[in-house]
Amino acid sequence: MSDYKAPLRDMRFVLNEVFQVSRLWAGLPGLAEVIDEETAAAILEEAGKLSAEVIAPLNRAGDEQGCTWNNGQVTTADGYVAAYQAFAEGGWGGVGGDPQYGGMGMPKAISAQVEEMVNGASLAFGLFPMLTAGACLSLTAHASEALKAKYLPNMYAGTWSGSMCLTEAHAGTDLGMIRTRAEPQADGSYKVSGSKIFITGGEHDLSENIIHLVLARLPDAPAGPKGISLFLVPKVLVNDDGSLGERNALSCGSLEHKMGIKASPTCVMNFDGATGWIVDAPNKGLAAMFTMMNYERLGVGIQGLAQGERSYQSAVEYARERLQSRAPTGAQNKDKAADPIIVHPDVRRMLLTMKALNEGGRAFSSYVALQLDIAKFSEEVDIRSRAQDLVALLTPVAKAFLTDMGLETTLHGQMIFGGHGYIREWGQEQLVRDVRITQIYEGTNGIQSLDLVGRKIVGSGGVLYRRFAAEIRHFSATACADLKEFTQPLNAAVDTLDELTDWLLDRAQNDPNEIGAASVEYLQVFGYTAYAYMWARMAKAALGGPIEDDFYSAKLATARFYFARLLPRIHSLSASAKAGSQCLFGLDAAQF
Amino acid sequence: MSDYKAPLRDMRFVLNEVFQVSRLWAGLPGLAEVIDEETAAAILEEAGKLSAEVIAPLNRAGDEQGCTWNNGQVTTADGYVAAYQAFAEGGWGGVGGDPQYGGMGMPKAISAQVEEMVNGASLAFGLFPMLTAGACLSLTAHASEALKAKYLPNMYAGTWSGSMCLTEAHAGTDLGMIRTRAEPQADGSYKVSGSKIFITGGEHDLSENIIHLVLARLPDAPAGPKGISLFLVPKVLVNDDGSLGERNALSCGSLEHKMGIKASPTCVMNFDGATGWIVDAPNKGLAAMFTMMNYERLGVGIQGLAQGERSYQSAVEYARERLQSRAPTGAQNKDKAADPIIVHPDVRRMLLTMKALNEGGRAFSSYVALQLDIAKFSEEVDIRSRAQDLVALLTPVAKAFLTDMGLETTLHGQMIFGGHGYIREWGQEQLVRDVRITQIYEGTNGIQSLDLVGRKIVGSGGVLYRRFAAEIRHFSATACADLKEFTQPLNAAVDTLDELTDWLLDRAQNDPNEIGAASVEYLQVFGYTAYAYMWARMAKAALGGPIEDDFYSAKLATARFYFARLLPRIHSLSASAKAGSQCLFGLDAAQF
Repeated sequence: MSDYKAPLRDMRFVLNEVFQVSRLWAGLPGLAEVIDEETAAAILEEAGKLSAEVIAPLNRAGDEQGCTWNNGQVTTADGYVAAYQAFAEGGWGGVGGDPQYGGMGMPKAISAQVEEMVNGASLAFGLFPMLTAGACLSLTAHASEALKAKYLPNMYAGTWSGSMCLTEAHAGTDLGMIRTRAEPQADGSYKVSGSKIFITGGEHDLSENIIHLVLARLPDAPAGPKGISLFLVPKVLVNDDGSLGERNALSCGSLEHKMGIKASPTCVMNFDGATGWIVDAPNKGLAAMFTMMNYERLGVGIQGLAQGERSYQSAVEYARERLQSRAPTGAQNKDKAADPIIVHPDVRRMLLTMKALNEGGRAFSSYVALQLDIAKFSEEVDIRSRAQDLVALLTPVAKAFLTDMGLETTLHGQMIFGGHGYIREWGQEQLVRDVRITQIYEGTNGIQSLDLVGRKIVGSGGVLYRRFAAEIRHFSATACADLKEFTQPLNAAVDTLDELTDWLLDRAQNDPNEIGAASVEYLQVFGYTAYAYMWARMAKAALGGPIEDDFYSAKLATARFYFARLLPRIHSLSASAKAGSQCLFGLDAAQF
Repeated sequence: MSDYKAPLRDMRFVLNEVFQVSRLWAGLPGLAEVIDEETAAAILEEAGKLSAEVIAPLNRAGDEQGCTWNNGQVTTADGYVAAYQAFAEGGWGGVGGDPQYGGMGMPKAISAQVEEMVNGASLAFGLFPMLTAGACLSLTAHASEALKAKYLPNMYAGTWSGSMCLTEAHAGTDLGMIRTRAEPQADGSYKVSGSKIFITGGEHDLSENIIHLVLARLPDAPAGPKGISLFLVPKVLVNDDGSLGERNALSCGSLEHKMGIKASPTCVMNFDGATGWIVDAPNKGLAAMFTMMNYERLGVGIQGLAQGERSYQSAVEYARERLQSRAPTGAQNKDKAADPIIVHPDVRRMLLTMKALNEGGRAFSSYVALQLDIAKFSEEVDIRSRAQDLVALLTPVAKAFLTDMGLETTLHGQMIFGGHGYIREWGQEQLVRDVRITQIYEGTNGIQSLDLVGRKIVGSGGVLYRRFAAEIRHFSATACADLKEFTQPLNAAVDTLDELTDWLLDRAQNDPNEIGAASVEYLQVFGYTAYAYMWARMAKAALGGPIEDDFYSAKLATARFYFARLLPRIHSLSASAKAGSQCLFGLDAAQF
């Protein structure tokens, strides 16, 4: 039951029919020559094959076997080395990479789909290339030419992988508290010393070398977040001719025992005067990290969606085959002892919830990816800056909302299997355990909500939000009459979000606690409204297709379900947020 | 961090101050002589000690070690045999048992608290006595005197345990499809043959004997649910003098590999012409099973609450100790590098959600337990029948809502730990994995919702519901003015539920799909409203206490939080339910 099929038809629908990407690509100088609809389709098909045939079959066995640590060396589960090699040889490590250093230079709209497929096949596997891609992004934006030339080509090629070493045992959310130190050396290098925890892919046997990006403090650094610098610290030192030299003074102290993503090694990394090189200027480490954050956080959102998609595929298959009880309207399957459970309204409710949230999530994450591409490739300053603002606004929503919905969908997918959903062999429970980390890492979803409400909404005085709301209203205003059944509730949802935003902007002026008190619910209202916008746009595209085609009529039916049964969630969320912060402070810490 | 403390103060508050149980007990002939407030306090304190000191320390190690199967024999995790012996020797196996056969004859209001403590200490452990108690209940109500005298005393004593053998691989929800057969023998016994799956405690090393209650078909039985009978099939045959005889022809074929409750063996049980005795009349097996269902389902609800309570205790401790970032209103802890995370509004939101749902759940499950006691012990027919009706109405809510809230609370508890919440050593993730089964087994929560809406609401034409609603309105009408801040929103919630009930009764007449389409959301609206009633009653009791006492002021503050931030969830749920069934049937099975 754990088979995975890449949702290629749906991806093409989103890219070509909903967002008409080929028009966009043709107008962007860096993309016009590298990508068009046909190339995109070919790339996605290849990625789909690799994901379904090579990576997906490893997912369950990898969960059972996990990684093993032996005297500092980490061995991945059976088959991971070969699969990683196939991934690297296909050039997938450089799909979004800078062509100047051997990357494919594909837009994020494409690499986002590749990420969905690879992570849908196996989240634990997908983390290896994701961390490498994140490290490459930071290097591309902030490292010297020399560092880029020395490291990027092998990282894109997958022969070297990357890791991001941020967290310390006492410093998770609060990175300003880190203690790892970097001592400058006469030759311009640094000696890095300290201990990092929760380092995904910090040590493993998939690649010849691992390039660690490490946050540390210089000796004279100011206290707090403004005294943090970023260092490139390779596992194996690289000679000037590019060949591998000595082992660096760093090691993996142990692996964490986790709820899920067991085939991904989560390492304690000890740096004992390891040689490293500074990336960007001293004390600019957090800024250099945040460069790749928008990409990485969108990627984590997509991981959540990917688990939901895999769970859905298995759940639909099971619901069509499992025979239990009769349809409420009478037997549908008279020659059998019972009807397939897909006849039951509550099973359909769960499947449609999954379908609506997955497809809404795919459209939304693709929309954000398109903004990242415009922000990167457009030559017009205004358009670029508008896209950057949208990215800033929507990234925390994409990270938190897609992963929250990932948990909800995988829980439904597990429930549809009844008791079998709790049994490991059936595969559904692993998706729940795996997806859960996506709500926690890369900034918990609570932290994403604070970023959205504190920095993006209140921080911009509501400007970023109002621009996005205006885009939605413009869509509704210019939509044809057939779309009214969708644009009416969409506009009403924007009204609700407007009101909540105004309420928040007003309240936050006098009470700093209101931001954190309302943030999680606010992000959810925002997410459901953004998905409503996506569903209205998908409905528009579906109305443009031949209605006798099951694909398009299913899209319309799912859109109707979304507006009827999921969008109303915003009302309670909004009421709860507006209840304010006061009721959170009626107890002392000791009274809990 | 995995320490567990029995919430004794809270239990006494619910029993004595909210429900004034001693008055009730004094008026019930079967209880007046066995229990009063003082005895209850002593019993709960002892159960709390056993739970915290003997059972709780086994929980995490049991999860890691699990049970092992070897050639049909099952070995439980280290320490389980000794802990079970301590449990049995304390007489806890017979706490609610029939005194005629050696039980303690305690009311459910007491055994419910014991269940919470034992399951809070370890759900995997708690399942052994729970299944035994369930089997005893079925035997008490339906078995012959001879069977009761032969089996009950040893089951109460814990020297023998029980199992319930219902599910078959192709028959989970739809028990009418079972194939296990029972052939009558000349001596009045039966030969039982068939294979059962998902049998909790079907085989283990804790007790000398295991008494299986097995659903099977007689040779001439009618098809479907009306052709099912119940059989007592012991693992070891019992001689007439009560000594153990030969092994019966049954065995454990294998253990399931599960998401959680790993220290509880979930067995495939094979019956190969095993000797058994019929319980109750032929073809009355399902009815005999359902006798214990109300008790068992309430017990499963309490399991959900218990995981939430344990998660909360650890989360509060962590939130008071973990230092990250500063309070939005400025540093609270100026001599340290950061403030404890309990200063953050979103952390408080999660903690208060847990607290409000746990304490609401404890009051609600105790309320249902009291109705079970009235239904069993009252000598007045009217009062008994009213209580029976309330039990019928509220049991599916208790099972599903308490376990749904159990998942929500443990998820919050895990999130409060940030990355550490995902690491097994910290204990929080196990609670999420363990509690998840409570939503699935003993009838999935979807099935509970169908039971509530189909059988109890529509089946009674709304009569059962209206009686419960009238009780709430009566409470509000007779409450003092100080309680208005709670009774006003409580009445409004009942109005919402009234409206939804009327809508449903009306719609279900013409469309059989409406029941299943609305059922899950309906049950949730019901649950939140029932908790609001409980919180209003707790607020009333708290107002009666000395307000300078932190315990009472915390109760009032938590009540205010519940009404402000959780009760509003009913509006979206109600809107979603009222969207109706039509949008669930816009797609063919093939279009998913």
